[in-house]
Amino acid sequence: IESGSLFTLQRMLNALHPAEIAHLLESSPLEQRKIAWELIKRENEGLVLIELNDDVRSQLTEEMDTVDLVEALKDLDTDDMADFLQGLPDTVIQETLAGMGRQERERVEVVLGYDEDTAGGMMDTEVVTIRSDVNVDVVLRYLRIKGELPSHTDHVIVVDSYDKYLGVVSLTQLITSQPDDAILDIMDTRYLSIPAHLENAEVADLFEDRDLISAPVVSDLGKLLGRITIDDVVDVIREQAEHSIKSMAGVNSEDDLFAPILPSVKRRAVWLGTNLITAFMAAAVISQFTDTIESAVALAVLMGIVPSMGGIAGSQTLTMVIRGIALGQIGKSNTRDLLKKELLLGVINGVLWAFVVFCISAVALKDIEIGILIAVAMMLNLIAAPLSGVLLPLGLRKLNIDPALAGSVLLTTVTDIVGYAGVLGLAALLLPYLRSVFS
Amino acid sequence: IESGSLFTLQRMLNALHPAEIAHLLESSPLEQRKIAWELIKRENEGLVLIELNDDVRSQLTEEMDTVDLVEALKDLDTDDMADFLQGLPDTVIQETLAGMGRQERERVEVVLGYDEDTAGGMMDTEVVTIRSDVNVDVVLRYLRIKGELPSHTDHVIVVDSYDKYLGVVSLTQLITSQPDDAILDIMDTRYLSIPAHLENAEVADLFEDRDLISAPVVSDLGKLLGRITIDDVVDVIREQAEHSIKSMAGVNSEDDLFAPILPSVKRRAVWLGTNLITAFMAAAVISQFTDTIESAVALAVLMGIVPSMGGIAGSQTLTMVIRGIALGQIGKSNTRDLLKKELLLGVINGVLWAFVVFCISAVALKDIEIGILIAVAMMLNLIAAPLSGVLLPLGLRKLNIDPALAGSVLLTTVTDIVGYAGVLGLAALLLPYLRSVFS
Repeated sequence: IESGSLFTLQRMLNALHPAEIAHLLESSPLEQRKIAWELIKRENEGLVLIELNDDVRSQLTEEMDTVDLVEALKDLDTDDMADFLQGLPDTVIQETLAGMGRQERERVEVVLGYDEDTAGGMMDTEVVTIRSDVNVDVVLRYLRIKGELPSHTDHVIVVDSYDKYLGVVSLTQLITSQPDDAILDIMDTRYLSIPAHLENAEVADLFEDRDLISAPVVSDLGKLLGRITIDDVVDVIREQAEHSIKSMAGVNSEDDLFAPILPSVKRRAVWLGTNLITAFMAAAVISQFTDTIESAVALAVLMGIVPSMGGIAGSQTLTMVIRGIALGQIGKSNTRDLLKKELLLGVINGVLWAFVVFCISAVALKDIEIGILIAVAMMLNLIAAPLSGVLLPLGLRKLNIDPALAGSVLLTTVTDIVGYAGVLGLAALLLPYLRSVFS
Repeated sequence: IESGSLFTLQRMLNALHPAEIAHLLESSPLEQRKIAWELIKRENEGLVLIELNDDVRSQLTEEMDTVDLVEALKDLDTDDMADFLQGLPDTVIQETLAGMGRQERERVEVVLGYDEDTAGGMMDTEVVTIRSDVNVDVVLRYLRIKGELPSHTDHVIVVDSYDKYLGVVSLTQLITSQPDDAILDIMDTRYLSIPAHLENAEVADLFEDRDLISAPVVSDLGKLLGRITIDDVVDVIREQAEHSIKSMAGVNSEDDLFAPILPSVKRRAVWLGTNLITAFMAAAVISQFTDTIESAVALAVLMGIVPSMGGIAGSQTLTMVIRGIALGQIGKSNTRDLLKKELLLGVINGVLWAFVVFCISAVALKDIEIGILIAVAMMLNLIAAPLSGVLLPLGLRKLNIDPALAGSVLLTTVTDIVGYAGVLGLAALLLPYLRSVFS
């Protein structure tokens, strides 16, 4: 970026949609990101910040003072604002709240009172409510006077005088009804209302299953608190997916491609360190059999194939099971059927690949004894792997540990140890005997 | 399931929401799934089928005859119907189309004319259109006569007499405007219209970035063809995420936890077979150094640690890069910055973990020479790994191969070979010298 073109750049940047600006910032290396952020107009800052991922957002807000923050936030929806504030230090939250108008502050405080990962934490408190004892014409005139409706309003919510939730009337229903139809007659009293404490993953499932655009959020006593809209649900779905993918690769909670180096090193170290421990565990297993390896160095050449195949087979099952758990498809009633299926799959895979690996070893390497050992060990490991792929994540869930996070490292520990112990143990026991038969 | 309670079960089953029935079918082993499917009422079948994943759906439809299929499909939206038909054999598509009314058939054929993965393939052809030369009152009366509007209608679409797309008027705008306001004055002419050939991943990004509920789909000449609604976009987002997760684990296109055994064996064999080849490649590398291993069997014990750590470090980078590519955050302009960052990360990680592994080897195993070799090889591999993690997926994308599918197996091939060749090659070169220094 040359300094002469900064002004042009600034104009181009601010002409973009906030989501596109956010996208551009996320794709920029640190230095360029800071320059670009300086160029964004004050009135766009809030909308852009909301669209950024958590990593990049906190990088940029760290350098803003509270006055600027309050200014940037003032045009946001309550749910976005609450979501944003939850990521900031407590003192900044207090200062920011103090800088708001009373009504706005109260609204945000309601949302902040709920956990970020619940329906209450993701709801918007701006709702259009009507009473049940009026007719369509009255409602239409009321809405016309009101002038503007909050975005994603697909229905108005019917409440009694204590704000208790009664039902909804969709805008299409309002438009297609006769002016003198009573709201009491046309309102949908069976429309889904969401308890404020429901977890956001379950909220997402409900929206997806029922194709909702928005839904009212109610307290335990049935009082209307706010509403959730599909745009926030889409964000939840996207975040869940990202979280699963990244957890399984050990880069959980790393959002920024261009994150500063030291935090990246620290985050990735957890996974590398865990892996180092399990790798030394595998080495400890191998070290029990140094005599056997010395007597047949071909073992050292081929033994790695057994844990490697077990690791792949186990991960395949693990991934299916983790997805099944996430989608709520696995429970007590079908665990046994699943184990039976994966056991059968393990036996078939075991026999199949043991045969392949025996043929390769025997033909290409002309070593029938080692071929037999590798094949038998692989068969055992390919049977153990899918069973671990089912049992480990189910066990982790019982211990309230996210299977996506810890499942894969535990699984490879099992398949490595079973694999190495299998091939080297069998060799220690059987190699002298096999040698006497085949040579 | 006891036979006496079948009737109760049937009543319970049909009282559920179609999405919940689908969920139940997906969670059931094959036998129970077939029994449950028999119990579902004819009028629910179509809605349930649409909610099922592809695997389970084709299992169930394989056993239905065309008359039943046509019957099950008849109440679906055109986009759902087209989506469904695309998965069936051609003869069945023809028969099913022949069984429909003329208007319906033509609508479905329009959608079928587009690729399943484009805006045209996911659009619904039922739209509410109005002309620009009327006023709000006329439109409201028209809608009232029409009676019911398609689900997810958040705006009506303004077209000219040749069906050319002009703009939209939102329902909230209609409701809050004065009856004599002209449509020409209140319509939004800058509302996003989606070209029919746009890929569905891009459609999803547009919906997400702009928080849309529905958007019109237009031909290259600007003619209105249909509309896309958020519920279908949510499905696209969910499918993309599932696809990434499963591709990376080598269970791509496997949707059914209880899939029949043989197809599962076949699908998973691709990945296991590929892995076997790369495992034998690693073995080939090791086999070049049997003399070295014979002279120091501790190498056989510890050498596996080097490729294992490289594999983890590489996968971490790979996952970040694959996500970055999917989100469109990586292009020519920032590849160099990314490489620079990951190189620096690799150097820091390499020095850090080489030091840790040297300390463990030297102190716990009292073998300084092997400790030095493992540490140096690990440093090299931890530098090569993140670079491969950036370059491999970018290269694959240039060759039009999905990096999520092939990236991880290629990466471990690189880290295995660099790892084993590194540690054993260094040993062959330096071990005699190191021995003379330290013993």
